Amino acid sequence: MMILALAGGVGGARLASGLAECSAPGTLMLVVNTGDDFVHYGLHISPDLDSVMYALADRNDEERGWGLRGETWRCMQALEKLGADAWFRLGDQDIATHLLRTTLLSDGASLTEATRALCQGFGLAHTIMPMSDQAVPTRIRTDEGLLDFQDYFVRRQCSPRILGMDYGAAACAQPSVAFQHGLQAPDLEAIVFCPSNPYLSIGPILELAGVRDGLRTRRVPAVAVSPIIGGSAVKGPLAKIITEQGMKVGPATIARYYAGLIDGLVIDLQDAACRSEIEDLGIRVCVAQTMMTDRQSRAALARQTVNFATGLN
Amino acid sequence: MMILALAGGVGGARLASGLAECSAPGTLMLVVNTGDDFVHYGLHISPDLDSVMYALADRNDEERGWGLRGETWRCMQALEKLGADAWFRLGDQDIATHLLRTTLLSDGASLTEATRALCQGFGLAHTIMPMSDQAVPTRIRTDEGLLDFQDYFVRRQCSPRILGMDYGAAACAQPSVAFQHGLQAPDLEAIVFCPSNPYLSIGPILELAGVRDGLRTRRVPAVAVSPIIGGSAVKGPLAKIITEQGMKVGPATIARYYAGLIDGLVIDLQDAACRSEIEDLGIRVCVAQTMMTDRQSRAALARQTVNFATGLN
Repeated sequence: MMILALAGGVGGARLASGLAECSAPGTLMLVVNTGDDFVHYGLHISPDLDSVMYALADRNDEERGWGLRGETWRCMQALEKLGADAWFRLGDQDIATHLLRTTLLSDGASLTEATRALCQGFGLAHTIMPMSDQAVPTRIRTDEGLLDFQDYFVRRQCSPRILGMDYGAAACAQPSVAFQHGLQAPDLEAIVFCPSNPYLSIGPILELAGVRDGLRTRRVPAVAVSPIIGGSAVKGPLAKIITEQGMKVGPATIARYYAGLIDGLVIDLQDAACRSEIEDLGIRVCVAQTMMTDRQSRAALARQTVNFATGLN
Repeated sequence: MMILALAGGVGGARLASGLAECSAPGTLMLVVNTGDDFVHYGLHISPDLDSVMYALADRNDEERGWGLRGETWRCMQALEKLGADAWFRLGDQDIATHLLRTTLLSDGASLTEATRALCQGFGLAHTIMPMSDQAVPTRIRTDEGLLDFQDYFVRRQCSPRILGMDYGAAACAQPSVAFQHGLQAPDLEAIVFCPSNPYLSIGPILELAGVRDGLRTRRVPAVAVSPIIGGSAVKGPLAKIITEQGMKVGPATIARYYAGLIDGLVIDLQDAACRSEIEDLGIRVCVAQTMMTDRQSRAALARQTVNFATGLN
């Protein structure tokens, strides 16, 4: 039986590695946001695919929160000395990933195929797939104008106020064939929305042609894990973005965003009081320890999430 | 008064840095071979431009003979771990040069403009220019077939036997505007052929549209420095290539290759006996200590070469 999980960057990558840990090889399909992919210095960079790959390979830097462990920055320092842009930090080892992906793509491989080759290089047993083989750049409507994702997220450190999301031509873009097959797989047991930022990371996946419809008419349970714990986001700009949209920072806001697409939501012990508000939306609730601080807690939450989902069948 | 020098990779870069040392800022124009430029991992790599830039910036690795001093190889090691091609060694700092050049080119800059930006980044006072803004890849006809330059030079370590050179569409390619202007500059005082490999490095420059004619009808003296010392090449495959073509490894072979294009040849003390054979070709000879082992010897040979040239006026 297969699990299909939707993931964005860091938060998603944590649960993804937990799911990988407690799934038999080949039984986990990780569909990853590529809305924040961009070309920088001629390199095709897929930050979320990389975060998930690095986490599954146990090569990610937990402390920094992104990139590879034991990374060095010699190339970046040389670029800075040359007076070049250095707002997007490229690690020396990380550049190898980008170089190989860029070469494979320019040799005619799809992003799905390039990702498969990279996963093989990292020795991964599970399938990581891009949400789409088409470029679907997310842009952010802010009080300072429409910004490219990485311009907003990295260069501006999420400081402009968000007015809304612009998922571009996502509605006209096809999900990757692997993702389409995954959604239709006869041995699919459950769908998991990882605790990534719903607006920045999961939203772009949902906007692709046919994905919302495919999820609405699902024949298997779908559950999400809330990225909000105790009224704040574990990491990143999620709380700020929710507040800027005039909503309350809590798991019920997450539940409302996913309403119709999920059967259950995993919320943190600290948010147990939100249970009835979420259940009123027709969404079942599982209260759990959702803070993932190490390998054990990631695997425990993954196991609990899958058990919760399959129990809803 | 200006000096225009033609240079290829390492040997050329050594004399180029000597010339830079003894020229007032802005009085030296270095025209560099781009016949061995290639795209690798999506990066536009110009090995000879880099060798000359790094040498002039006093950043080149003398011991290794190419690339930057104090280089690290983290990206390369990561590429190897991913199972990717690693036959062309890319240093971490060197990659910064390639990334910046590639970005500038893809943003619409010419190679001349990209080179100017890089030279500015390296703080250089003299002008380094590509021989052409058009791609003019040199290929090598060998007993194992027609090989791309870097395939022959780096991957195969020059082991196949050379049958001849293929300068491709060089005859249809325009020299860069800066090179054209340099050749016609009213304040041009002399032209120097650096001791690079005539077949692999200087040949591609000479084959460009109008260059041989421009040199034949020169109004200023042109001199070459022999890359052959004591019957062997200082570095690289030059002696092997000369032998494979059935010729004798000595400065007279260099003189014959450049006949009509130069007025004088600087040869090493060890080759003083070849003087009359070269003079019989109508080429004047300057016997000098041509081995460049340090900054002093580079500058001394440069000064002697320029004095020899201007004395022929």
